Amino acid sequence: MNITIVTTGGTISKTFNEADGSLRNDRPVIEAILAGLRLPDLAVSYRHVLSKDSLELTDEDRRLIVDTVRQVLRESDAVVIAHGTDTLSVTGEALHRELPAVPVPVILTGAMRPYEFRDSDAPQNVTEALLACRLSPPGVYVAMHNRILRFPGVVKDRSSLTFVQSASENRPSIPRETPVA
Amino acid sequence: MNITIVTTGGTISKTFNEADGSLRNDRPVIEAILAGLRLPDLAVSYRHVLSKDSLELTDEDRRLIVDTVRQVLRESDAVVIAHGTDTLSVTGEALHRELPAVPVPVILTGAMRPYEFRDSDAPQNVTEALLACRLSPPGVYVAMHNRILRFPGVVKDRSSLTFVQSASENRPSIPRETPVA
Amino acid sequence: MNITIVTTGGTISKTFNEADGSLRNDRPVIEAILAGLRLPDLAVSYRHVLSKDSLELTDEDRRLIVDTVRQVLRESDAVVIAHGTDTLSVTGEALHRELPAVPVPVILTGAMRPYEFRDSDAPQNVTEALLACRLSPPGVYVAMHNRILRFPGVVKDRSSLTFVQSASENRPSIPRETPVA
Amino acid sequence: MNITIVTTGGTISKTFNEADGSLRNDRPVIEAILAGLRLPDLAVSYRHVLSKDSLELTDEDRRLIVDTVRQVLRESDAVVIAHGTDTLSVTGEALHRELPAVPVPVILTGAMRPYEFRDSDAPQNVTEALLACRLSPPGVYVAMHNRILRFPGVVKDRSSLTFVQSASENRPSIPRETPVA
Repeated sequence: MNITIVTTGGTISKTFNEADGSLRNDRPVIEAILAGLRLPDLAVSYRHVLSKDSLELTDEDRRLIVDTVRQVLRESDAVVIAHGTDTLSVTGEALHRELPAVPVPVILTGAMRPYEFRDSDAPQNVTEALLACRLSPPGVYVAMHNRILRFPGVVKDRSSLTFVQSASENRPSIPRETPVA
Repeated sequence: MNITIVTTGGTISKTFNEADGSLRNDRPVIEAILAGLRLPDLAVSYRHVLSKDSLELTDEDRRLIVDTVRQVLRESDAVVIAHGTDTLSVTGEALHRELPAVPVPVILTGAMRPYEFRDSDAPQNVTEALLACRLSPPGVYVAMHNRILRFPGVVKDRSSLTFVQSASENRPSIPRETPVA
Repeated sequence: MNITIVTTGGTISKTFNEADGSLRNDRPVIEAILAGLRLPDLAVSYRHVLSKDSLELTDEDRRLIVDTVRQVLRESDAVVIAHGTDTLSVTGEALHRELPAVPVPVILTGAMRPYEFRDSDAPQNVTEALLACRLSPPGVYVAMHNRILRFPGVVKDRSSLTFVQSASENRPSIPRETPVA
Repeated sequence: MNITIVTTGGTISKTFNEADGSLRNDRPVIEAILAGLRLPDLAVSYRHVLSKDSLELTDEDRRLIVDTVRQVLRESDAVVIAHGTDTLSVTGEALHRELPAVPVPVILTGAMRPYEFRDSDAPQNVTEALLACRLSPPGVYVAMHNRILRFPGVVKDRSSLTFVQSASENRPSIPRETPVA
């Protein structure tokens, strides 16, 4: 299976600068995360697009993300996008709108705590995104915290610090087949 | 979502005894693994059945595992079984045979390297098993190393140290839906 | 052996706030670091004085630190102070000046990278400070990066991101005894 | 400062074999431990002598260790020996006896739990051994668990799983200088 991972910055890839004590988006960390996972039979390509806090993404940045996904779709069985959580929903809705007949799963993921921290949720979320590449039907999703939620209608819940299906779109993200008894 | 985790021992839960330098199955480690994950909206019950290297499981032990799964199925939306990898396939085939109309996903998992080791694959595999609880149709599976493989016909490949679908049963474990363009 | 650990904030104890993505001095982390060490025969008391970036320490804050050390000296075989690195030298010089006949080792330590990060130097530095409590003669020191440097004359080297003995005070921090052959 | 690290095996360097589930002495791990430490101004050479559980060391093996230390002493400001804990005292006594006028500190260390385990005491003990290289007068020592104990008269306490000065040799391992008030 061939997948492409598109990196855009976000909390997941914030790193600590020892000279000035700042936390910055300087470089992607996703290859380090994948180095800690066992992924036989998964060929991974990387497309580094941006290193930005997602609050700073412009319309043009988002257009660049959508265009990159459109381009890599042709050669990928699935696409994972590492993205900041603050405006992940905006990008998810844009992908859903701009790529209506997306032929493969496009999975957004990220983290509430940067990968460089001991207690980061990044390894969990990336593990889930990579499994969703195999299990999800075509569509645009966020993979985080044991849930795969399908766009449209996914939002960040700022009180519980995770993503939820918005009330108006309340439905199971992936219908499970009924058992054949 | 309510799931039950059944623990049976195996490499995943081997712990180091400092007094004699041995590696043993003394206690389950799965609660420690889940403590490192973010699982909103997942209610987890534990059923500790055995603490054994899976090479030492008897027919009676395996009957006990099957009976426990049959019992917890009634009150669970999914069941995860932490199991040694050496005879995981034997237990998977027994579950598939004894529970032909299983109404929920039953996900076997484990690890090639005990959880107590820095480079253990246990957190990845448990993360995948817990996501497969949500995404997989009813059936008996192994979740490991970015793959969810469905019984019957799953075997441990001793050269690559992972699980594979055996040749005679070669088919996608979960058919993906076709895109609705 | 009885030691007291005085906490003042600094990079070592910066923690990540998931709600706003900031890195802050909210609480000491030193007890978590000691929980990962084996310290038989060491009785540790904690005195939490400040939670500040050391660039923000006022003269009054520093007086509070010196007064706290003077007070806990009476009941301690050694004192460790967790401190930000940016103005650690200022506090070290103040302690050296204000406590000229200090009867036990007073060891300043900290970190270039907060403890919450995977690659933090905090566990190393705290391990070294706790060993210096046993091995160093009375005096005021910084323990960091495999060196125990004695005040006066210790400065942070901003290019190599560690502490060094300043040129004008160049001397071995602790004279080693000559072997008795 | 130039030090030499002599590796002999022991619990500290036991690694897990995924093919058969065994814990073995196959290769030294000390370079991986040092890679996690910040050691400016420390030049380290390695001498890999043995990969053995220390219960299996023969008289000839121990002679080889003593001869290696005697040889590297000439070009080192200190020597660290990574060793199994079960017979570390035997080797320590032999070094003390065979190298009576040792001109530099010779520091034995090891671990109760292999380095590959998450909760290993190896990083702490190696950090302490490397600091004792700088702080200890010439002599033969064990560095472990916040203590530097000097041979002769150091034994493993099997109930508390650490090293202690034996009763007949009860004395401070390194006399601290008296404060000059």
